Amino acid sequence: MPEIRQNPATKEWVVIATERARRPEEFVEMGETGRKIPVYSKDCPFCPGNEASTPPEIISVVGSDGKWSLRVVPNKFPALIPEGESVRDGDFGFFRSMDGLGQHEVIIETPLHNASFGDISDDKALEIVKAYRTRYLDLSSDKRFKLVTVFRNQGKEAGTSIEHPHSQIVATPVVPLHIRHRLEEATRFFDNHGECVFCRMLEMEKKDGKRIVMDSESFLVIEPFASRMPFETWIIPNEHHASFGEVGDTELSELARVMNRLLEKFNRCLGSLSYNLVVRTVPVGEEGEDYYHWHIQLIPRLTTPAGFELGTGVYINTSLPEAAAKFLRKA
Amino acid sequence: MPEIRQNPATKEWVVIATERARRPEEFVEMGETGRKIPVYSKDCPFCPGNEASTPPEIISVVGSDGKWSLRVVPNKFPALIPEGESVRDGDFGFFRSMDGLGQHEVIIETPLHNASFGDISDDKALEIVKAYRTRYLDLSSDKRFKLVTVFRNQGKEAGTSIEHPHSQIVATPVVPLHIRHRLEEATRFFDNHGECVFCRMLEMEKKDGKRIVMDSESFLVIEPFASRMPFETWIIPNEHHASFGEVGDTELSELARVMNRLLEKFNRCLGSLSYNLVVRTVPVGEEGEDYYHWHIQLIPRLTTPAGFELGTGVYINTSLPEAAAKFLRKA
Repeated sequence: MPEIRQNPATKEWVVIATERARRPEEFVEMGETGRKIPVYSKDCPFCPGNEASTPPEIISVVGSDGKWSLRVVPNKFPALIPEGESVRDGDFGFFRSMDGLGQHEVIIETPLHNASFGDISDDKALEIVKAYRTRYLDLSSDKRFKLVTVFRNQGKEAGTSIEHPHSQIVATPVVPLHIRHRLEEATRFFDNHGECVFCRMLEMEKKDGKRIVMDSESFLVIEPFASRMPFETWIIPNEHHASFGEVGDTELSELARVMNRLLEKFNRCLGSLSYNLVVRTVPVGEEGEDYYHWHIQLIPRLTTPAGFELGTGVYINTSLPEAAAKFLRKA
Repeated sequence: MPEIRQNPATKEWVVIATERARRPEEFVEMGETGRKIPVYSKDCPFCPGNEASTPPEIISVVGSDGKWSLRVVPNKFPALIPEGESVRDGDFGFFRSMDGLGQHEVIIETPLHNASFGDISDDKALEIVKAYRTRYLDLSSDKRFKLVTVFRNQGKEAGTSIEHPHSQIVATPVVPLHIRHRLEEATRFFDNHGECVFCRMLEMEKKDGKRIVMDSESFLVIEPFASRMPFETWIIPNEHHASFGEVGDTELSELARVMNRLLEKFNRCLGSLSYNLVVRTVPVGEEGEDYYHWHIQLIPRLTTPAGFELGTGVYINTSLPEAAAKFLRKA
């Protein structure tokens, strides 16, 4: 019997399609295994020696050998640029538009062409998430920006054309509707229950245990009850903070370790799969709010959303979250 | 300068990324051209002779030769099944779920393995959209179902594994949040302006003209102002009806012709591309409403939504809708 589940935090329904469900093991072959990525690629714009093929650095980390180990640069083909006005709708017309004001940066995580989360040291992972926080805080301080989104696309199916390990950060001058709706649902829960819905989720998931992938001092890693796609995974900090910018040093070290271990698990279980990773956080100026709770979503791209998903927003998931969690837990 | 645009009907923002924009011609090579699909495939479950590999027919159309020309069958691996209760949340617990009650049907459009919209006669196209309406109306009359969604996935990038031309129809026992949000925005516009936002859009698009692809007696075909993906196309009926079930015979004939012509244009311009097509309509029981207006969305899968899209709901579109419309208009 298929099951329809609702995500308690977002109120989105998903279909857990048991009639077409696959066991976790059946997804293993879908990851790209065995392909050897070189440590250096001479045509890669992010490899050492090709620094001139990116715009000048915003920040960089230099190792004891005097060479860079991480660079943050403006995206050469930015979706948004830090010019123009954040004024919309000057004439209150029917079609509303505004300048493509914003900032679009690339975090080149390492000089090595093939060293991604799951294959790197925890120290290296910490260097990367530290860069996330540094750039997040800097962009958040620009009054023209309303939302700062850190994300990472890995693999062709996840929409990236550049293989070299990198993350991205985009500051937008508007709060997208999709974010507004999530904040509304979280606020509604807070109004009803006087508690953050994510704090409650942590409590319920710990009690239930079935969907836990990893449990550390500061983070709970789960396959959400209403996972939209096979192996969708959330990393939720135990401590309530609305904004990613509020993450402390100790928490950040643990986050690096947890992300690294989690992706090591994924690599081991599913081959080197394509995935998107995104840091969910409140809009700028809403730090300190009671109702939202920053977290990270990891979305493997093992299946393709089709017409039903695009037309209804309801995902048909062919994997049972509890089975996926058990599979990953044991890995 | 990139531009941020808001869809007047959905209020969703999109980024029109001019810095990385491609001219319409540059998408041509992305469609799969030249691949020859056979007229018959002996292992295809939808080809004649393999009728036993699908569940028994719900309806079929039989030609003058006594053979079927269209079959509607239950999906063999349904996302939802017409069993169970539409009761949710029996104990008001934190995690809400319900039986996977619904119906999932496949419309096998033709006995020919390779004859899809754009390559078929207008009469054939009419047979297909008539089946859409027949099944839509039948499923809408089942009081357990709240939304009936007709859609079509073509090509691997659009998430289909079966090549044989087919559409699908899914009845769900809940109104998805994504649909609720769209209805809310349309209602808000109606409350503000005393007019359906799609009726106004038709008027404004006709006046503006720049985004029109085709203009027929009963339908306007446009690249929406805030297109999410390159060549996203909407087919909007001129006459206001909230529900697809209200479409009349004359309109249906014209819809068949318009869809067929539009996809012929796509085939000619972009090769045989992967796309999703979805009929947007009100939930069951809201027929006759003033505030919503059924329409069809065609979404070519030429680019891959990545972490930014998944994390913010904002699409980065690398094609200017006005340029895409001009390109298609001239085709």
